[in-house]
Amino acid sequence: MSTAGEHHDHDRDAWLREGLLGAHPPAGEWDRPGAHPGAARVSISFTADSGTERRVRVPAGVSVFDAASWNGIAIDSTCGGHGTCKKCRVRVVDDDGADPPVSRLDPRAFSPDELRAGWRLACLAPANTDIRVEVPPLVTRPKAATVGVGRQVILRPAVQKRFVELAEPTLADQQTDLERLLAALDDLDLRVDLHTVRALPRVLRVADFRVTAVVVDDVLIDVEAGDTTDRSFGIAFDLGTTTVVATLLDLSTGTPQAVGSVLNAQQPFGADVITRISATMLDPDSLGRLTERAHATLDELAQEVCREARVAPAEVYEIAMAGNATMTQLALGIDPEPVGVAPFVMAARSFPEVRARDIGVRVHPGARAYLFPALGAYVGGDIVAGMLASGMDRDRRVRLFIDVGTNCEIVLSDGDRLLATAAPAGPAFEGAAIRCGMRAAPGAIEGVTIGDEDVSLQVIGDVEPAGLCGSGLVDAVAALVGAGLVDGTGRLADGTAVRSRRPRLGARLASVGEERVFVLRWAGDEGDLARAVYLSQRDIRELQFAKAAIATGWRLLVEEMGLAARDVQQVLLAGSFGSYLSPASAVRIGLVPEVSVLRIVSAGNVAGEGAKMALLSMRERAGARTLLKEVRYVELSDRPDFNDRFIDQLAFPS
Amino acid sequence: MSTAGEHHDHDRDAWLREGLLGAHPPAGEWDRPGAHPGAARVSISFTADSGTERRVRVPAGVSVFDAASWNGIAIDSTCGGHGTCKKCRVRVVDDDGADPPVSRLDPRAFSPDELRAGWRLACLAPANTDIRVEVPPLVTRPKAATVGVGRQVILRPAVQKRFVELAEPTLADQQTDLERLLAALDDLDLRVDLHTVRALPRVLRVADFRVTAVVVDDVLIDVEAGDTTDRSFGIAFDLGTTTVVATLLDLSTGTPQAVGSVLNAQQPFGADVITRISATMLDPDSLGRLTERAHATLDELAQEVCREARVAPAEVYEIAMAGNATMTQLALGIDPEPVGVAPFVMAARSFPEVRARDIGVRVHPGARAYLFPALGAYVGGDIVAGMLASGMDRDRRVRLFIDVGTNCEIVLSDGDRLLATAAPAGPAFEGAAIRCGMRAAPGAIEGVTIGDEDVSLQVIGDVEPAGLCGSGLVDAVAALVGAGLVDGTGRLADGTAVRSRRPRLGARLASVGEERVFVLRWAGDEGDLARAVYLSQRDIRELQFAKAAIATGWRLLVEEMGLAARDVQQVLLAGSFGSYLSPASAVRIGLVPEVSVLRIVSAGNVAGEGAKMALLSMRERAGARTLLKEVRYVELSDRPDFNDRFIDQLAFPS
Repeated sequence: MSTAGEHHDHDRDAWLREGLLGAHPPAGEWDRPGAHPGAARVSISFTADSGTERRVRVPAGVSVFDAASWNGIAIDSTCGGHGTCKKCRVRVVDDDGADPPVSRLDPRAFSPDELRAGWRLACLAPANTDIRVEVPPLVTRPKAATVGVGRQVILRPAVQKRFVELAEPTLADQQTDLERLLAALDDLDLRVDLHTVRALPRVLRVADFRVTAVVVDDVLIDVEAGDTTDRSFGIAFDLGTTTVVATLLDLSTGTPQAVGSVLNAQQPFGADVITRISATMLDPDSLGRLTERAHATLDELAQEVCREARVAPAEVYEIAMAGNATMTQLALGIDPEPVGVAPFVMAARSFPEVRARDIGVRVHPGARAYLFPALGAYVGGDIVAGMLASGMDRDRRVRLFIDVGTNCEIVLSDGDRLLATAAPAGPAFEGAAIRCGMRAAPGAIEGVTIGDEDVSLQVIGDVEPAGLCGSGLVDAVAALVGAGLVDGTGRLADGTAVRSRRPRLGARLASVGEERVFVLRWAGDEGDLARAVYLSQRDIRELQFAKAAIATGWRLLVEEMGLAARDVQQVLLAGSFGSYLSPASAVRIGLVPEVSVLRIVSAGNVAGEGAKMALLSMRERAGARTLLKEVRYVELSDRPDFNDRFIDQLAFPS
Repeated sequence: MSTAGEHHDHDRDAWLREGLLGAHPPAGEWDRPGAHPGAARVSISFTADSGTERRVRVPAGVSVFDAASWNGIAIDSTCGGHGTCKKCRVRVVDDDGADPPVSRLDPRAFSPDELRAGWRLACLAPANTDIRVEVPPLVTRPKAATVGVGRQVILRPAVQKRFVELAEPTLADQQTDLERLLAALDDLDLRVDLHTVRALPRVLRVADFRVTAVVVDDVLIDVEAGDTTDRSFGIAFDLGTTTVVATLLDLSTGTPQAVGSVLNAQQPFGADVITRISATMLDPDSLGRLTERAHATLDELAQEVCREARVAPAEVYEIAMAGNATMTQLALGIDPEPVGVAPFVMAARSFPEVRARDIGVRVHPGARAYLFPALGAYVGGDIVAGMLASGMDRDRRVRLFIDVGTNCEIVLSDGDRLLATAAPAGPAFEGAAIRCGMRAAPGAIEGVTIGDEDVSLQVIGDVEPAGLCGSGLVDAVAALVGAGLVDGTGRLADGTAVRSRRPRLGARLASVGEERVFVLRWAGDEGDLARAVYLSQRDIRELQFAKAAIATGWRLLVEEMGLAARDVQQVLLAGSFGSYLSPASAVRIGLVPEVSVLRIVSAGNVAGEGAKMALLSMRERAGARTLLKEVRYVELSDRPDFNDRFIDQLAFPS
């Protein structure tokens, strides 16, 4: 990689021609059905029977039911929002005095008088203007779970299990087995898997017609003997490029029962997405093998979490998955090449009819898979999941979300609008292009403090340091800047000059060939650079490049939103590096806006948390769809001033 | 089997206890959604742009589009009746002056003025009362084919192939591949098979974005490079107990390209349905093997007709199948035991989401399978298909349909009402319980004429006769009755008495043990009964029993309909025996009403013809659903007079 000086001259168009992941995909007006960029928000005031009033703001067009669910307000429902159970009755009063729209199914649920009085089915009532909604007392007792960044999720999973006791057939009552069962589920309008029809005669008769129907959204996927309603599970996956995480949830309570994580078995094909895509371009068999490995990884985790939680795989009826566009396409066996090569086009944004087995996960044979939709080739399902889990669109504060990785996705929201962009940070954070870089594993330096004369290191696993990982890199550079050993332009101080006043620190400044380095740990004798762990000048340039891309990204978003950097009230750092970056170091090097470190939050595995939310609530899936409509993608490469700003951001703040 | 005398005393309840297929399932009020037993009919008068007027009668509630299609009147449509293409515009005038109902989608297709003038989408406009419909000139040129018993079918197959030329993506237009394709099919509201999404990126780019979308009903099952719209095929199957027939149709023209038939490979498990069901009850592995054999049979035929027509299996996008309830359930791998054992309950009446591969047929991997719905355990999808192909509900004449087999299904229609029943004929027609009985194969006597002294035989294959098949049995008995050698009670004449006046014929009357026989062919020397082919007294009783059941059946239907036997204007004989029965013989023995033989029609393989109609037109599938609602099942065993009438019908007419 070139030095900072050469970066100044890097030709952006060359990046585009090379089709590197680092190239900036243009925003354009990407086609998404029903897109309302920056949709106006409306205000809904919910009044419960007790008199309590809650005011929420949602994008215009969102259903009253979703608006309530997203804000922890429970309304009865048993049909998953399809309008068939008729239980989500609310009274809607339009602040302007207009009649709220009547849906096709409202006349089946209400008398004409009730309709005139404003009674509506909440799942079909859109909030197009400011309205007030009266919610009758609950008949059911829906549970809730806390997921993501403190988000309260009312449990509305797609999976429903219903125990029914059917009358046995007689010569006078020869209803077919299926008709008999469907009649007992008449608040639902169901499609039926063939698997269910095959199992039905035997299961009914073995169980004396007392059976449990297993429904996922609007599909009857199985029927089980007796009452098995307490055994209902799902698995949420974060399909990361490097690490894959699975959480098994009890869908009756919303609580995790087991968590597992494993390295993505696609690693041998490349550490990052672009290398894996290149592999498929070089060898046509690679796609199949990459897909197999994705499947093997996901299934291994599924079996593991089931074992740990003592759950039979057949008791897992749905899975949810958050992954970037390339990971998602590879898992589905879809050629990812067009995603990685100009003009950077996905095969599809969302995938409705997917079964768990289609991505290799062997749980219940009819189990469905919910895959997070992607905003675009560069802001994938994992980011959408992260936004959901962070409540990016449900918070009045100005919040900045940064997923730090090879490609950094940045999202800015002010409670009304959301802007997103992707900044090509390069491989610095992966530890790949760093001289002594390594993955975050035992032996990796993840923290660095530099005192007057001493250097103290935090090493993963508390073993002898073997290298430097992403968060260690940031810490090291921040510490060096703080200690005055790296200047504002990013240049390592000359050893001779430093040794005069700070001999011990100065002794660490050396050269490897023509290049200046700072030794973090001598392996053997001092002076023996061959086995030392050090930070090189080039490494610092890599970091400058990466942080300049990110800083330019969020600065442009902030400007686009008509704000200033100081208006940012919270910064969420996500991604495998973001979670471990020291907030103070991040501020020190100018990676994030200069806010109090208390306002910089490690968002943890928000993609995985988003997947959990989707599993626990179909309303949150509606939330993801709404996010897609609301978020406006900002194309960095279109900016004529991008290069100049990028150059400005290379420097470390004083 | 017992003699006729013993039959007089046969205990009907014993039959029920034994759970024989011959037992009469009660009608009861079987649950079918939206059942309108004997739905009232309405009159629609269609006026074309040319001024031509056609008047048709359909059950109330049928859509204007279906009513037109069933009667050869073409109305433009490209979306398969889902209301999305908005091309099926008609102007509806209610004879009473009322406004015709407005569907949810009509306001999207018409202005308020047009709606007030009566313009509606034909596919969503129900004919609830007598109406007049003005049909604008056609823009498209739908083809039609003649199928079944002279039925004109306007081609509206579920399979549609659309050639589209898409704009290639650019950095300014990054629509996903799927969005790009769906936008070009925007008159359709499609679900998408994962298979299609997987294939899409590669096919689009290989074909320069000029591709053919393959749609089956509302599912996008594949995308093919270039323009392949002229290659669109389907296979119609008649899945009979003994014989399976497949016809490969070109869906662009409606014409058959190849036909094949093969013996049902389930034979080793039993010649008839009840024996096969017993096999599954005795050995749990039998179900799997019976299913495999059904699959093997269907797939073998599919491959054969494809080869013969020079069609690649992957060019077959849909199949249709007509079979009785047991055959259908076995093909789907569903335990058939409850169908064959009291209270005779099917797993399901219809099976919406079935793929060809679910019944073992390896054509296009995403190909769908349409399976005819059954009326009940005893009037199966094959009968419904036969009714469709015979136009039983679209004809003003009084028509009697009899499917002659082990279980005879009988349907009577008068143009307004349909009644159906099932009569347990026993195995006589299968040739099984007949002393010298055999299948209809080379060597089987299928026709018998008896002159003053001579007996002449028609033998299948024109070889030496080896036995007697079902139609030969009927012919033989009819001939003997006509020659006075069998009396009205069914008793074979005494040889001695006959020999005096008709020595040659008399010589054929002999005895095997205690039993009288009539020798049809001496194998070696006259008198050598051991190798002769003869008809025994017991055989005649078998036939009497069978025809009494059938005759009682249709007589009760005729009475139930308030008619007399002489009111029957046409008799359709279906089934493998019905097609070959001599109409004159059928009348002679009282199997059918006494009508001119010119009015007795061999309906041929109507089940197969019905399957072809369903393949060629989704409107005919709607026709099958309408038939199910219209037909009222009459339970014979409930009749207190059944036994007496049965006894009356044992005799041969004088």
